[in-house]
Amino acid sequence: MFGSKKWDPKDKHIYITGGSQGLGLALARLLVKRGAHVSIVARNAEKLEKAKKEIEAARASDSQRVLSFSFSLDNASESAAALKAASDAHGGRAPDAVFTCAGASKPMFFLDMEEQDLTKGMVDGYWVQAWTALAAAKAMAKQGVKGKIVLVSSTLGYMSFVGYASYSPAKHALRGLADTLRSELLLYGIDVHCFFPPTMFTPGYDEESKSKPAITKKIEETDDGLTAEQAALGLFHGVEKNQPHITADLITSLFHASTRGSAPRNNAFVETILDFVALIGVPIWRSGVDKQVLAHREEHQGYLQKKGFFS
Amino acid sequence: MFGSKKWDPKDKHIYITGGSQGLGLALARLLVKRGAHVSIVARNAEKLEKAKKEIEAARASDSQRVLSFSFSLDNASESAAALKAASDAHGGRAPDAVFTCAGASKPMFFLDMEEQDLTKGMVDGYWVQAWTALAAAKAMAKQGVKGKIVLVSSTLGYMSFVGYASYSPAKHALRGLADTLRSELLLYGIDVHCFFPPTMFTPGYDEESKSKPAITKKIEETDDGLTAEQAALGLFHGVEKNQPHITADLITSLFHASTRGSAPRNNAFVETILDFVALIGVPIWRSGVDKQVLAHREEHQGYLQKKGFFS
Repeated sequence: MFGSKKWDPKDKHIYITGGSQGLGLALARLLVKRGAHVSIVARNAEKLEKAKKEIEAARASDSQRVLSFSFSLDNASESAAALKAASDAHGGRAPDAVFTCAGASKPMFFLDMEEQDLTKGMVDGYWVQAWTALAAAKAMAKQGVKGKIVLVSSTLGYMSFVGYASYSPAKHALRGLADTLRSELLLYGIDVHCFFPPTMFTPGYDEESKSKPAITKKIEETDDGLTAEQAALGLFHGVEKNQPHITADLITSLFHASTRGSAPRNNAFVETILDFVALIGVPIWRSGVDKQVLAHREEHQGYLQKKGFFS
Repeated sequence: MFGSKKWDPKDKHIYITGGSQGLGLALARLLVKRGAHVSIVARNAEKLEKAKKEIEAARASDSQRVLSFSFSLDNASESAAALKAASDAHGGRAPDAVFTCAGASKPMFFLDMEEQDLTKGMVDGYWVQAWTALAAAKAMAKQGVKGKIVLVSSTLGYMSFVGYASYSPAKHALRGLADTLRSELLLYGIDVHCFFPPTMFTPGYDEESKSKPAITKKIEETDDGLTAEQAALGLFHGVEKNQPHITADLITSLFHASTRGSAPRNNAFVETILDFVALIGVPIWRSGVDKQVLAHREEHQGYLQKKGFFS
């Protein structure tokens, strides 16, 4: 809130899912530099070990604890078990802050999707964070820990376009969860934040590029993107200032300003100006994207013919 | 689009899920009055039969066909089978418009939720519509039917507050799906609409009231709500005018105006004015709701004690 004290991660126990690479790893390194104890969770034990060493090397003091836990976070029970394991290592106390950075995206055409593409999109984009939020909220409330829960959505949690039919719904769902929990967890003094990063140049980005339709790539050409370090810094600054919705680039800030809904504003003056810019700019952007999609029709018909869609 | 011809349901085949009660039934009656052939889908065969008679009674002419199909729509294969059955009854042709009105909500506290409460919320609020959208998009694209797909979200797809941690994410996800498909299905000439109704006084509302927390009911006291008939009319007018996002009450229109994101505006002038009203009004509303939640803290601690949450 305006004028209130900045959040300081020093000496706090911070739990980061997806902490072995990309945004989660960059955030872990940033937080240990500022004096936090960090627990990271991911599936791949080898990557975890490597990440743990990198994080340890960034510590401000040798007394800071960096722990790693190998769990699969795509279901409620393992997500709860992972949080319990990290809490047990700190005398059973729930972490002071939980950052759910785990997630993945596989952009493709809706008509190329089968049931499992859509359900996997929801698991990788939503449940992998929602289960940790559920476990963390219960643990914090039970112990009276007035902590923070930070979800990681995406620019695609504010808007969407061709190619993201499995990812954007999941990222919108995270926004809905964050907005609900910001209200509901007032009951326990727990702060809820939601981060909306744009394209991040991470291992996850390289992976999603493999399946991304050409038209989707073309629309994103103008998107500058952030490194994991830039995104982590933007996220951290937002949490420091206790912002419910956090953005780290201009384009997402424009969508944020024009899609605030009932989310509290971070800076009413700046966001009102951005909202004006978006009022004019977003329809121009959208009309350009719509034209690109329409111009792609013929090529797309050829693509469908070739893959036997009509036969 | 502005100035373009209104959509006319006369002689069209319109497929409505959740057509045996509430919004779906009211919409079916409205559309047959305007000359459409209607197929309704729901699980309960008895309710379907009763609804079918009501819809038939509202027809403009005896030549209009009203068909009912009993399917469970919570999975992809049955949703596709239901659409196929209705298409087969019309010579195999995909419907001209698909309205996904199926859905249910069970408001409760996040901390009272177990895994199945959250997953069921996503099935009843999202998948039950997404699977039909997937089947419909494929069938329409394959046959070159330049039809309409109309999803039904909620005011809670624009914003949220205490009590809706399983429902609001699902309704936000539907918005994300609709915004993606509006862009992507331009490739096939298929229109995608998303309806955001407020409280509707339907059988579904009576059901959700049973589990709704007292604080959630209190926040909603000022919400006037619509009858199923009023909501169906609002939805129909929006589809008639080809609006991508459709609202039928002032409060939702305010949230719509202030959370447009990249969705095309229905009326740039009116919505800019509403956006100004929301700019001032929504923060006041939210601050009031936050205060209500905070004032509920002590009572809530008693509730948690009583149910043994801390033991």
